[in-house]
Amino acid sequence: MKNIGGRVTSLDVAALAGVSQSAVSRAFTPGSSISPAKRELILAAARKLNYVPNSIASSLTTRRTNMVAVILGNLDNPFYVLVLKSLIEALQARGTQILTFTVPNGGSSDNALMRVLRYQVDGIILTSAQLSTRMTSMCHDRGIPVVLFNRYIPGSDASGVRCDNAGGGRLMAEALLLAGARSFAVLKGDPKGTTSQDRLQGFAERLLEEGIPRSRILELEGQSVYDGAHAATLQAFRDEKKPIPDAIFGINDTMAMGAMDALRGHMGVTIPQDVMFGGFDNIDEADRWPYRLTTISQPAREMVDETLKLLDLDNPGAEIEPGIDIKVPGKLIWRDTIPRQA
Amino acid sequence: MKNIGGRVTSLDVAALAGVSQSAVSRAFTPGSSISPAKRELILAAARKLNYVPNSIASSLTTRRTNMVAVILGNLDNPFYVLVLKSLIEALQARGTQILTFTVPNGGSSDNALMRVLRYQVDGIILTSAQLSTRMTSMCHDRGIPVVLFNRYIPGSDASGVRCDNAGGGRLMAEALLLAGARSFAVLKGDPKGTTSQDRLQGFAERLLEEGIPRSRILELEGQSVYDGAHAATLQAFRDEKKPIPDAIFGINDTMAMGAMDALRGHMGVTIPQDVMFGGFDNIDEADRWPYRLTTISQPAREMVDETLKLLDLDNPGAEIEPGIDIKVPGKLIWRDTIPRQA
Repeated sequence: MKNIGGRVTSLDVAALAGVSQSAVSRAFTPGSSISPAKRELILAAARKLNYVPNSIASSLTTRRTNMVAVILGNLDNPFYVLVLKSLIEALQARGTQILTFTVPNGGSSDNALMRVLRYQVDGIILTSAQLSTRMTSMCHDRGIPVVLFNRYIPGSDASGVRCDNAGGGRLMAEALLLAGARSFAVLKGDPKGTTSQDRLQGFAERLLEEGIPRSRILELEGQSVYDGAHAATLQAFRDEKKPIPDAIFGINDTMAMGAMDALRGHMGVTIPQDVMFGGFDNIDEADRWPYRLTTISQPAREMVDETLKLLDLDNPGAEIEPGIDIKVPGKLIWRDTIPRQA
Repeated sequence: MKNIGGRVTSLDVAALAGVSQSAVSRAFTPGSSISPAKRELILAAARKLNYVPNSIASSLTTRRTNMVAVILGNLDNPFYVLVLKSLIEALQARGTQILTFTVPNGGSSDNALMRVLRYQVDGIILTSAQLSTRMTSMCHDRGIPVVLFNRYIPGSDASGVRCDNAGGGRLMAEALLLAGARSFAVLKGDPKGTTSQDRLQGFAERLLEEGIPRSRILELEGQSVYDGAHAATLQAFRDEKKPIPDAIFGINDTMAMGAMDALRGHMGVTIPQDVMFGGFDNIDEADRWPYRLTTISQPAREMVDETLKLLDLDNPGAEIEPGIDIKVPGKLIWRDTIPRQA
């Protein structure tokens, strides 16, 4: 490490602590081999000298920045806030820093990724909808692993982790059918997002098995968010424009909540007597008193763990095997918005 | 920029596009002077060559990384999710990247800051509660500006932006007094956080003017989060342990919502007939049908703008004047949890 502008260097710390320069480096590297007593000694010396190591300069030697980029879509969906929290906790615990990028709803991640590439990150976790196959191959050429979180890129072999979204959609259809529902509406998310598509597809497939074709499902554009679902619900049903179906499936919980509030708050509808509701995600809010939403639980923490395993930050050189598609099953959580069979 | 490992450099792009190397650099620098046509020409050449500039290497020359660190406390409070979103949007718009750190509730930011310093960031925005004055002076010594968001460090002259929290507490006390409340409980947040302290202090001061001393306010520990407030409320009032007061003030909205759901869901209490409620923050959820919470609005976006103005990223060399304390006033938002005077 060069001594730019008279800054304290690791050599100064090593001298004060009476250890080697490499011991100082190890003291500041999470997970490296050093005794707790020696590390404490070195950190005390570093504190005395106001020394902190410079990761940027050392990254030029190691070609590792110890930074991971997280590209996020929609922070208006509490599920992705939970994902971000879980990612930050897991990565911080191993001393890895997080560069956070957001992509507007429905937007492409290409521009965000172009920016990410300027920072020579050790890996990229992509949770937003679109990314061109061109960009994934660009990352591949630069040796930067990309893991897709809860989505896939049709026609690409980029690896990733997702909930079994189609399977979860089937489970929800099954629960609503069991409770006697025969007419259905669905609040959809980002039309280009594979998550929304897959959940709806699994839902529709199960209904088709009971002789209900997809054309009879009323599809509403909820834009993945509470406000979008609230507005779409009022637009569809207010002034008796369309008959309210037996059951409404929110492709995510926050859209189900928006629709519930629209129907109760503006039209005096009672749930589940007048209309049943199902959601997807099992965000904290779904369990709260005003909602008690029957939903499909996505195990966010487990999905985050699998994502980091795939990213394999401990093996910098290793390439991620292409075409891996880890599907974590969702689980039906019974609450109060679908009557249970005795 | 050196050509390491045969990578494409800005010289290659300049040659292909028929422009100077400095034009290539400007094409990739947000806000720099270059015609849209020329930029397009250069970006097309860069795409053809799979070229992206390397910010890490260039930071060693410019001493700027174009990264800002955001240290966050509690993402369980939707207000700080909104703050993070606003920060990401505002910083991304100017081409600045965000390193995100979180600090556990009640924890100190010192460790997070030690990590931040390794990345030579251009600035630090601190939204979590504690930071030692030792750490702020360490940043100062390294020439890294720190701006405090919605908090201050007693005994330090670090500059920052906050809501007028004491003033907002007064406004809420005033509203509840007007509606006839004479007995009060408060759901407090992090006991070391200045935000919670100041809101409670302003609230108590106004009550004292009406002859109600602080000792008569029932103080409950809600830990800044929904679940904490929910549990504290049940513990205080279930089984008629304590009488329910005329009014409950949630030091933030999410705690008020947790207490509302506890009282309605477990004890059949009606709001505002049995007990009035006030909150603080005006998060989106406060306006939803199940809550319609009367609250103090914090102008998050305005506060973010003021924070970035103070950080002054366009003037890399400039030091932030110490002791600046920008207070943005809050505003009372009347909804349905406090009866309005005719």
